[in-house]
Amino acid sequence: MKTISVGLIGFGTVGTGVAKILEKNAGLLYQRTGAHIELKKIADLDIKRSRGVRLKKGVLTTSADEIVNNPEIDIVVELIGGIEPARRLILKALENGKHVVTANKALLSAHGWEIFSAARLTGVDVAFEASVGGGIPIIRTMQEGFASDRISGFLGILNGTSNYILSRMTDEGADFKAVLKDAQAQGYAEADPTFDVEGIDTAHKLNVLLSLAFGGKADPKKIYTEGISSITPLDIDFARQLGYKIKLLAICSGHGSEIDARVHPSLIPEKHMLAQVGGAFNAIFVQGQDVGPTMFYGRGAGMMPTGSAVVADIVSIARNIVKGVSDRVPLLPYGSKAPKAIRIKPMSDVQTRYYLRFSAVDKPGVLSSISGALGRNHISIHSVVQKGRDTSNTAVSIFMLTHEAKESDLQKAIRQLEKLSMLKGKTMVIRIVEDIPAAG
Amino acid sequence: MKTISVGLIGFGTVGTGVAKILEKNAGLLYQRTGAHIELKKIADLDIKRSRGVRLKKGVLTTSADEIVNNPEIDIVVELIGGIEPARRLILKALENGKHVVTANKALLSAHGWEIFSAARLTGVDVAFEASVGGGIPIIRTMQEGFASDRISGFLGILNGTSNYILSRMTDEGADFKAVLKDAQAQGYAEADPTFDVEGIDTAHKLNVLLSLAFGGKADPKKIYTEGISSITPLDIDFARQLGYKIKLLAICSGHGSEIDARVHPSLIPEKHMLAQVGGAFNAIFVQGQDVGPTMFYGRGAGMMPTGSAVVADIVSIARNIVKGVSDRVPLLPYGSKAPKAIRIKPMSDVQTRYYLRFSAVDKPGVLSSISGALGRNHISIHSVVQKGRDTSNTAVSIFMLTHEAKESDLQKAIRQLEKLSMLKGKTMVIRIVEDIPAAG
Repeated sequence: MKTISVGLIGFGTVGTGVAKILEKNAGLLYQRTGAHIELKKIADLDIKRSRGVRLKKGVLTTSADEIVNNPEIDIVVELIGGIEPARRLILKALENGKHVVTANKALLSAHGWEIFSAARLTGVDVAFEASVGGGIPIIRTMQEGFASDRISGFLGILNGTSNYILSRMTDEGADFKAVLKDAQAQGYAEADPTFDVEGIDTAHKLNVLLSLAFGGKADPKKIYTEGISSITPLDIDFARQLGYKIKLLAICSGHGSEIDARVHPSLIPEKHMLAQVGGAFNAIFVQGQDVGPTMFYGRGAGMMPTGSAVVADIVSIARNIVKGVSDRVPLLPYGSKAPKAIRIKPMSDVQTRYYLRFSAVDKPGVLSSISGALGRNHISIHSVVQKGRDTSNTAVSIFMLTHEAKESDLQKAIRQLEKLSMLKGKTMVIRIVEDIPAAG
Repeated sequence: MKTISVGLIGFGTVGTGVAKILEKNAGLLYQRTGAHIELKKIADLDIKRSRGVRLKKGVLTTSADEIVNNPEIDIVVELIGGIEPARRLILKALENGKHVVTANKALLSAHGWEIFSAARLTGVDVAFEASVGGGIPIIRTMQEGFASDRISGFLGILNGTSNYILSRMTDEGADFKAVLKDAQAQGYAEADPTFDVEGIDTAHKLNVLLSLAFGGKADPKKIYTEGISSITPLDIDFARQLGYKIKLLAICSGHGSEIDARVHPSLIPEKHMLAQVGGAFNAIFVQGQDVGPTMFYGRGAGMMPTGSAVVADIVSIARNIVKGVSDRVPLLPYGSKAPKAIRIKPMSDVQTRYYLRFSAVDKPGVLSSISGALGRNHISIHSVVQKGRDTSNTAVSIFMLTHEAKESDLQKAIRQLEKLSMLKGKTMVIRIVEDIPAAG
């Protein structure tokens, strides 16, 4: 029986899931690949702590180099995250002719094409299903399920922590800070939640999906990225009254040579399939030119869901090894030597509808000043509600929905308005996403 | 440049979609496969009617045998549906060393393993993404996305026609017959809608998914199959008041050596992701042991969605041809010569909760007679509502939800009750599906 040896770098939550699945499903994996998949080496800084997995003697090491340079290892699984040393280790493994499985969205977003090109040089495979959407097989759906189609765009709930926090804020009317604290206590949020709640993790994942959906390379620094930390229960409640939910969305759609790609909290119609995605779940809504609208839903994180995606990648590579092939699903299109450059539309040019919440003094003429400033900047108001005076201070909340307007115009109007003494504090701006933005 | 030749049998709606996609996406398909994919032959009884596709001279033929015996053709696409002559043509194509793509769920349900075994004999591939869920890539998700996991079960909305009719009945409070008639006029339902509305098409698709999810062969005649033609607006309305929607579901879950597999209208909680699936859309909710709950949503039918799934299969096979491999994702597990036999649990043994609607004379003692008969048959009542007298006749409607009970007990109780003169007409029985049935 053929044996395929796996070296695992990073024995944290997902790594433990991978080791557990390789152990408990060994027979199943043989039936599905024709090979025995052996977990040969695991590298981690901490090799003392028990993870509840039975391992043979000599499997654990503190040296990741021992794995990427081990001639007996066929597939290297990188689960340490971050840019370095993950990048160096993966490139070394590829150089040594090893296939690589990674869940590292930060690295793929920043250096994906460097890694894909290195893999092509030595004729090995790189698989990264676990980098986006945890257990949801969205990567292979993009690469294989929709191989016959052109993707028009996608919307994604790609960060479980943010969706968990927004869902609890919605269900309980609770504050961001209170829910975050509780989420941290329960293990749904990291001690430093910045990557998750500020949209950075979502932007990394958006860029990974973008490269597959549009077959090219974009500059991730150009992806406008805004998180959920300033969303208040007031906004969530008012959105609900208008028939919307607030979700942190990755938004991406093809506009000819330019792609609209951004991450921000969004009002989404409560009847939209994505609005139903609660808790720590993820979902990706994809529009194909031929296939039409589709959605893929599941757990976006966790030991076993993400572990199962990593092992599915190991299975895929094992099937290739058994058949003696690689690069069966090319990351770089046939007939091209380098990825196509994709330009991301500047945020200032984006056209969208807006939800606005002003905190203003309760005096005659306020509404006319606001609507005047908006109108002078080509922003047309769809509806206005002025809420009664808040007893705790002297300000009132004015809620508005606009028609479609240009982001640069909106920002200019807000700057002008915030110079006026009648506005108290920052204006809340949340973009409305009715559906995947139309190409135009 | 390598050329891969495709022969298409059946130039109807989906066949036309396939031809259109192969034409408009030729460049894209080359980039993704490394081969030029040529539509060499199309067989149909009607080769006169224009389908709006440009075809070279000599492509059209009325003889399907000309395709399956053509030595120049690499991939045969079967889109005629039904058992014969589709079965004979596919087996001939496989015998002649051709790869086969089919959307034929009726054939796959009845003779899938015969076809898979024939393909293995000559070392060619069979792909059937378009057989279930139209454009939703659920087949490859089962075969590849979840290759590391054990499926616990799935629930599917697999028939667009039925879902379209139920959705309109729900939205408009309209009768089954009226909506069906309109659906036929609009092309959402066939002139003879039996296969769709009586659950037969859904049962075929269930059996195809079952064979992948549980890696074995079941007798499709054992799948209990009930359609939606007796559902009334009264039931839909009452279900809604109780927090449920009525959907035609394929239900399948693993029970050790026995599988619970059935098709029937079901009350599903309105908060369940599947309850959100409206119109002609399809969705499959899959529970994996490691990956947890997932859902896949999209158009279940139509020229371009289903056509795109067929062409995705052509791409997959083309990628294998370019790399010189086949049977990379084995349909029969390694180490086994024949599919595992899967036993379907008899419907009489199924345990579920029930929605019951009795039409009864409005006299004292009716409720006590009904609850007595149920109780004697071990059926415990969860809640009862008796609606006021219907002015158009002398009967009243009594609605009940039961706790979990055994199907044979329920049927026995109904038989006993329907012998009593106090019941007018048939009792409506709709099973409640809160989630994928637990193994047990």
